[in-house]
Amino acid sequence: MIPAIRGMRRTINRRSRKAGLPPGSLVHIGVGSGTSLIRGLRYGPSGAHRIAFEGEHYSTDADVPDPHADEVLWLQVRGVTEPAMIEKVGRKFGLHPLLLEDVMNTEQRPKVEDYGDYLFIVLRALHFDPESGLSHKQVSLVLGPNYVLSFEESDQERNFDGVVSRLLDGRGRLLHEGADYLAYSLVDSVVDHYFAVLESVSDQIETLEEHVLSGRENLLPAIHRLKRELISLRKSVWPLREALVFLDRQHSSLIDEDLSVFFRDIYDHCIHVVDTIESFRDMLSGLLDVHLSSISARLNQVMKLLTLITTIFMPMTLITGIYGMNFDRMPFLHSPYGFSLVIGAMVLISGSMIWWFRKKRWL
Amino acid sequence: MIPAIRGMRRTINRRSRKAGLPPGSLVHIGVGSGTSLIRGLRYGPSGAHRIAFEGEHYSTDADVPDPHADEVLWLQVRGVTEPAMIEKVGRKFGLHPLLLEDVMNTEQRPKVEDYGDYLFIVLRALHFDPESGLSHKQVSLVLGPNYVLSFEESDQERNFDGVVSRLLDGRGRLLHEGADYLAYSLVDSVVDHYFAVLESVSDQIETLEEHVLSGRENLLPAIHRLKRELISLRKSVWPLREALVFLDRQHSSLIDEDLSVFFRDIYDHCIHVVDTIESFRDMLSGLLDVHLSSISARLNQVMKLLTLITTIFMPMTLITGIYGMNFDRMPFLHSPYGFSLVIGAMVLISGSMIWWFRKKRWL
Amino acid sequence: MIPAIRGMRRTINRRSRKAGLPPGSLVHIGVGSGTSLIRGLRYGPSGAHRIAFEGEHYSTDADVPDPHADEVLWLQVRGVTEPAMIEKVGRKFGLHPLLLEDVMNTEQRPKVEDYGDYLFIVLRALHFDPESGLSHKQVSLVLGPNYVLSFEESDQERNFDGVVSRLLDGRGRLLHEGADYLAYSLVDSVVDHYFAVLESVSDQIETLEEHVLSGRENLLPAIHRLKRELISLRKSVWPLREALVFLDRQHSSLIDEDLSVFFRDIYDHCIHVVDTIESFRDMLSGLLDVHLSSISARLNQVMKLLTLITTIFMPMTLITGIYGMNFDRMPFLHSPYGFSLVIGAMVLISGSMIWWFRKKRWL
Amino acid sequence: MIPAIRGMRRTINRRSRKAGLPPGSLVHIGVGSGTSLIRGLRYGPSGAHRIAFEGEHYSTDADVPDPHADEVLWLQVRGVTEPAMIEKVGRKFGLHPLLLEDVMNTEQRPKVEDYGDYLFIVLRALHFDPESGLSHKQVSLVLGPNYVLSFEESDQERNFDGVVSRLLDGRGRLLHEGADYLAYSLVDSVVDHYFAVLESVSDQIETLEEHVLSGRENLLPAIHRLKRELISLRKSVWPLREALVFLDRQHSSLIDEDLSVFFRDIYDHCIHVVDTIESFRDMLSGLLDVHLSSISARLNQVMKLLTLITTIFMPMTLITGIYGMNFDRMPFLHSPYGFSLVIGAMVLISGSMIWWFRKKRWL
Amino acid sequence: MIPAIRGMRRTINRRSRKAGLPPGSLVHIGVGSGTSLIRGLRYGPSGAHRIAFEGEHYSTDADVPDPHADEVLWLQVRGVTEPAMIEKVGRKFGLHPLLLEDVMNTEQRPKVEDYGDYLFIVLRALHFDPESGLSHKQVSLVLGPNYVLSFEESDQERNFDGVVSRLLDGRGRLLHEGADYLAYSLVDSVVDHYFAVLESVSDQIETLEEHVLSGRENLLPAIHRLKRELISLRKSVWPLREALVFLDRQHSSLIDEDLSVFFRDIYDHCIHVVDTIESFRDMLSGLLDVHLSSISARLNQVMKLLTLITTIFMPMTLITGIYGMNFDRMPFLHSPYGFSLVIGAMVLISGSMIWWFRKKRWL
Repeated sequence: MIPAIRGMRRTINRRSRKAGLPPGSLVHIGVGSGTSLIRGLRYGPSGAHRIAFEGEHYSTDADVPDPHADEVLWLQVRGVTEPAMIEKVGRKFGLHPLLLEDVMNTEQRPKVEDYGDYLFIVLRALHFDPESGLSHKQVSLVLGPNYVLSFEESDQERNFDGVVSRLLDGRGRLLHEGADYLAYSLVDSVVDHYFAVLESVSDQIETLEEHVLSGRENLLPAIHRLKRELISLRKSVWPLREALVFLDRQHSSLIDEDLSVFFRDIYDHCIHVVDTIESFRDMLSGLLDVHLSSISARLNQVMKLLTLITTIFMPMTLITGIYGMNFDRMPFLHSPYGFSLVIGAMVLISGSMIWWFRKKRWL
Repeated sequence: MIPAIRGMRRTINRRSRKAGLPPGSLVHIGVGSGTSLIRGLRYGPSGAHRIAFEGEHYSTDADVPDPHADEVLWLQVRGVTEPAMIEKVGRKFGLHPLLLEDVMNTEQRPKVEDYGDYLFIVLRALHFDPESGLSHKQVSLVLGPNYVLSFEESDQERNFDGVVSRLLDGRGRLLHEGADYLAYSLVDSVVDHYFAVLESVSDQIETLEEHVLSGRENLLPAIHRLKRELISLRKSVWPLREALVFLDRQHSSLIDEDLSVFFRDIYDHCIHVVDTIESFRDMLSGLLDVHLSSISARLNQVMKLLTLITTIFMPMTLITGIYGMNFDRMPFLHSPYGFSLVIGAMVLISGSMIWWFRKKRWL
Repeated sequence: MIPAIRGMRRTINRRSRKAGLPPGSLVHIGVGSGTSLIRGLRYGPSGAHRIAFEGEHYSTDADVPDPHADEVLWLQVRGVTEPAMIEKVGRKFGLHPLLLEDVMNTEQRPKVEDYGDYLFIVLRALHFDPESGLSHKQVSLVLGPNYVLSFEESDQERNFDGVVSRLLDGRGRLLHEGADYLAYSLVDSVVDHYFAVLESVSDQIETLEEHVLSGRENLLPAIHRLKRELISLRKSVWPLREALVFLDRQHSSLIDEDLSVFFRDIYDHCIHVVDTIESFRDMLSGLLDVHLSSISARLNQVMKLLTLITTIFMPMTLITGIYGMNFDRMPFLHSPYGFSLVIGAMVLISGSMIWWFRKKRWL
Repeated sequence: MIPAIRGMRRTINRRSRKAGLPPGSLVHIGVGSGTSLIRGLRYGPSGAHRIAFEGEHYSTDADVPDPHADEVLWLQVRGVTEPAMIEKVGRKFGLHPLLLEDVMNTEQRPKVEDYGDYLFIVLRALHFDPESGLSHKQVSLVLGPNYVLSFEESDQERNFDGVVSRLLDGRGRLLHEGADYLAYSLVDSVVDHYFAVLESVSDQIETLEEHVLSGRENLLPAIHRLKRELISLRKSVWPLREALVFLDRQHSSLIDEDLSVFFRDIYDHCIHVVDTIESFRDMLSGLLDVHLSSISARLNQVMKLLTLITTIFMPMTLITGIYGMNFDRMPFLHSPYGFSLVIGAMVLISGSMIWWFRKKRWL
Repeated sequence: MIPAIRGMRRTINRRSRKAGLPPGSLVHIGVGSGTSLIRGLRYGPSGAHRIAFEGEHYSTDADVPDPHADEVLWLQVRGVTEPAMIEKVGRKFGLHPLLLEDVMNTEQRPKVEDYGDYLFIVLRALHFDPESGLSHKQVSLVLGPNYVLSFEESDQERNFDGVVSRLLDGRGRLLHEGADYLAYSLVDSVVDHYFAVLESVSDQIETLEEHVLSGRENLLPAIHRLKRELISLRKSVWPLREALVFLDRQHSSLIDEDLSVFFRDIYDHCIHVVDTIESFRDMLSGLLDVHLSSISARLNQVMKLLTLITTIFMPMTLITGIYGMNFDRMPFLHSPYGFSLVIGAMVLISGSMIWWFRKKRWL
């Protein structure tokens, strides 16, 4: 449980350090670190080609490529820890300082903001690891008339590999559509990955279920951890749904009318994800109830059995006590069969008690 | 409990496999499999007749029939596992690729979508089997100006048999109305079946109730299973209600104004189903409480009884201990009536304790 | 508990039997049965008079009276089991087939529907019997320009006796107002009866409370039964509130503007009823908590007492064990006061234990 | 708990007695009784003066004073049990019969109704007595163009004494403003008193908290009683908030635009009261949890201690049993130090057990 | 727990003392006390300079400075206990009496009110101290065309030190923007501090978590205290969110259109804070469950162990009882190995019982 809190704390920590600064100051807030990487792609109906840079990594000295009227430019920024680079990109495309601040502050809720000349879309890319649990990384998109800027939290991200290869291979509609369709495809590839996360969570629930049914104890922290991760998952998906509704109502001139059915499709996916999360939460609550009640049932079983044993021994002990008394005259005391008789009586009494408890279904 | 999760997992599994593909790719997502089957019906005021195909099964080589202006065409597709067939139908009627994707992805929520030239309606057909629980199959309808396309998940479905026979027999208003009334009748026949499902669930609750009152143990998993099925049932009906509200507000030109009272009637049915589900959930919660408290009451009863027995034996054991001490001088030890006196005292003490416990209503 | 479920099941049963039929088929769905009865009343400012029929019961051969322009006609149908009669009335006043279906299907939620030429109002008349619990019967009203049709579930109903006698006696405003005021009066008389039901429920809660405070056990099923009845009660009143809001907003030409304050008054009554139901539910929840905690407190009391007794006897038994040992040399064994001394010590020990337990307030 | 239910029942009782009567019949519904009292005040910028009546009590023969154009008339009716008087006032000011019915039926929810010529405001005046708990009395106001009618439930009420003295003393803005400002001042004086009620409730919670922390038992009924009173309190304040929103939106010509900021101030007070109630409910829930868990903790403490004692005595009793056996040859039996050795062993065993339990923190 | 209630009570106390006064009376309501302090700042694009007063503290004799057309005036009032000073400021800037009342009544909810000529913004500045818990102080802002008035609860507050130094240093955009940007910066600096509070709360939760996992008892009050503080925290932030929505919709002429993106940024911060609070509440609930169940698990462990010990000793005690009986003839009694045999049997029995309990995983 502690890692989850620690992770959250660190972010808040760094955020509070920023408290004194004027608004719009570019300070990276988030867990990620490491180098930044920038890649460019231009494409049109004729095909897509990478923009040449010296080496793979973009140096801050090089120029940010200009968008062309007849081609779509996609600038893919991976790693948002270097304010200088972010600021340079921002200046080139005329982005608002608060937008750049949001890009670098990687704890944003999913949202869509319309800045007139460009749309700003914030998403959360989710990954689930059975060991370390759910991790989410921020993905920010800027959609302009003929360009798309994508910002990912670290240079390790592989969110858009499928889209890149589809572009370079020339498969699908991508080359024949505008920047808006590219933005849609990027959002779609992030949202599609949510189903893989759900699958992993579902595996975890199944494992938990087997543990519960096999009578393992102390599953409470694991159930709570999973519950919390579902809450966190829901928090990443639900605002996206709202943002898509906003996008649909806004009728931004940057997005073609024909594309609205595609965004509605993503909206449906979000609803489906949220529905499944709700089902999982219901399952976990059920598991929790079954777990708690089976633990208490097992304990009760043990206590009942032990109390029954105590009760069976009580009368026998009384009889031995009686024949241990030092009275001069007691029946059977001097008879040769006395001992056997008494032992027999004790066996009889305990036997009939066991029979009676069995009949009452207490044993 | 495991089957329910497994079923859900498999779908998510296959869905995540689709993650890399471009949007609109036709891949069947769902549990069903097997052959597909296509049937056609044309009708007008003069009567209805089946469209002749070679054999019962539609081969992918044959043409999809054209809609006529003066007759209503109903194309009934059973089994949505063959992308080729779905795509062929889609091309004939000019359907959107995302619509076809939704038809083949059988985990959609109920919804109504207006594509301008045609309406797309997704429903869930429900079946309840006491053994395997609730199963739901997707039913998709496309309502065009003079045609209706219906897609069912497998060729085993019998959702529309009643409507087919009413058409062929010429009973009711069906022959005299347009495609919109046919679509309404199909939705109505699916929704009407929900009441049969509710009936089965009600039987299960009644059985559970008898088990609870007769003191059976370990009913918790069964109660939770039923609860979860009610949640799943609700999830199939509730979005349909919203979709019908949307249909009512939209005033699509494809649906005659006079039909709105009919769709409002289905809306009322949905509300009724949801209300009944809520009642069932309340009953199950009550059952759960009664069950848990009767289990704990029974255990408490046993524990109390056994503790009382222990308490009754305590003083008697003490007395035998006293007369088992080896003091030279103890009262009554050498008296011929000593033993009988002490035994009598023990009987008296235990008797009065039992009387007192009875009076206190502890026994 | 079983009756409540059974009653619900029977309705669903019959409803599912209807599943195959075309919409608008007149089949009675409900628990009631028996003969149907029809009565007519005409009135104007000059007075009210019953319409003569041969005998009290209306034969299906007789004609349904026509509404007159200058008088208000009230047709009171009691018992909705005969499709022929319902259909005849429906044809005379030009009612929609789905409306007639709703009249005969006595499991409708309260609602108001505007059919243009007439308003359709569905209400639930409630009765509470301490033995059999809450029963509700459907009351349907059709309000036309100068007529009111009222449909009650059986011929035993006495919902409107007060209004009939006020009409025949000529008391109040009824004779001087139109059909809309009559409809209002009928709704008002049904809603006013809800307060009598609340009163009975309040009696039941008070009885339960006395049982709880006097320490009766096993009140859980009774509390749950009452809780369920409150839920069912709420379900009858809440939709009526919504329907009245709808009526208020709709501004139907059939209802005079001046009457809106009257309908708002019924609306206030509904809110009051729902508020009181909520209070009752809170009380029942409180009662449940007090009940459960007093049961467990009593059990704990007993267990604690018995454990204390065991503990008090432990040291005494140990002492007797010590002096029961067969060592040759033990102190006081041969002293004439040995026995008395040991018995005295035992009394002292147990006495001081009891004193200590008292002081600790454990006893 | 019983008084609260009884009070509620009585009202419902009387209400149900009214069920047969036509709407608008004036029957007093409520707990109050006793004489009615009427007082009049006229004021303008020049000053305020009481209207002379013969004696303090207003006889039904006397005339109700007319409102003047240049002065504000405030008619203060205390006690609403006499239909004749209420009706007379109603006739003079042309009030709607349903309004008068609401005035006499003292179980109304707070509301504001716009009758065109006058506004009708219903409030609940609250009083808290530690003994009998929360009591609420209905206060109804009618605001006309140049008059205000106030109706209080009994002649014992002192809700408006502050306003009366401010008028007669000529302090504040009252004399220089119209009837709307008077109405505002009356509402304000009722709402201001809510804070005194909250203070009393807060005292009660504090007392309860001290009881809980000092370990008193059986506080459950008291906590539930207070919880219920908070619910009832909330029910008196929440609808008032809604009513004030309604008043703000309605823009009645009877209330000056400049006054809206004043009514918004009352609105803020209501929100503050509701917020504080919510805090109190949270505190009570917390108290309840702490109470229940401290009760069970104390019981567990006792049970654990007693069980430990039993366990410590077990081995000692076994040893005495061993040396009580009648074997011919047993070690130490005939040794002079045998007894001391065995007693020493027993002390050692029990001592080390106590030490071990201490170490394990069980004791 | 008591301090929290006491603090709340004192405010209500003083508030109720105000009940009799006319609305708009200036009485300080709140916990704070002490001297008041007033400071002035003027700035424009050319720079910022403090307004000279005699001494640091503003005497009530001195004049309140006038706003100039070409410069922004910021009047910073710290400590709102002196009605004379508040009234003087109010008269100079023409503020509404109810606004001044709200400034002095430091228990307001966050809100934004548009008075036409000026906007009134109420915020809560939060501080968290691990000892005394969460404290909140009211911050009121009045934004006029070219001035900002800020009122803080006491002269100890340091909420705006960052903004003051940024103004005097001439860093950032502040000098080049109008009064609206200053108001924004003040709100922003208060809201930014919420993250520091969240950080402290997160520390507390982490400490609690460690206590829970290390098995500390009696953490319930601490968990409840923290829960209550989260509720209180949420109550300070949530209404601010609403107020900012209101501000956004209102389009006050006092706030430049370009600034709306900045206020939307604060809005996002509020949402983030509320989200984090919700996460913390979920964590606390989880902690509570784990805590309660680990307490009961530990108790159960102890009870089970002790009961097992009792059960193991039962048969041994029975055997000693048997050989303590005084029968003349008993097997092994006179055998030299009798004692060893019996002791051996006892060891064997208890040993096999322990083995069996171990196998059953009861021990």
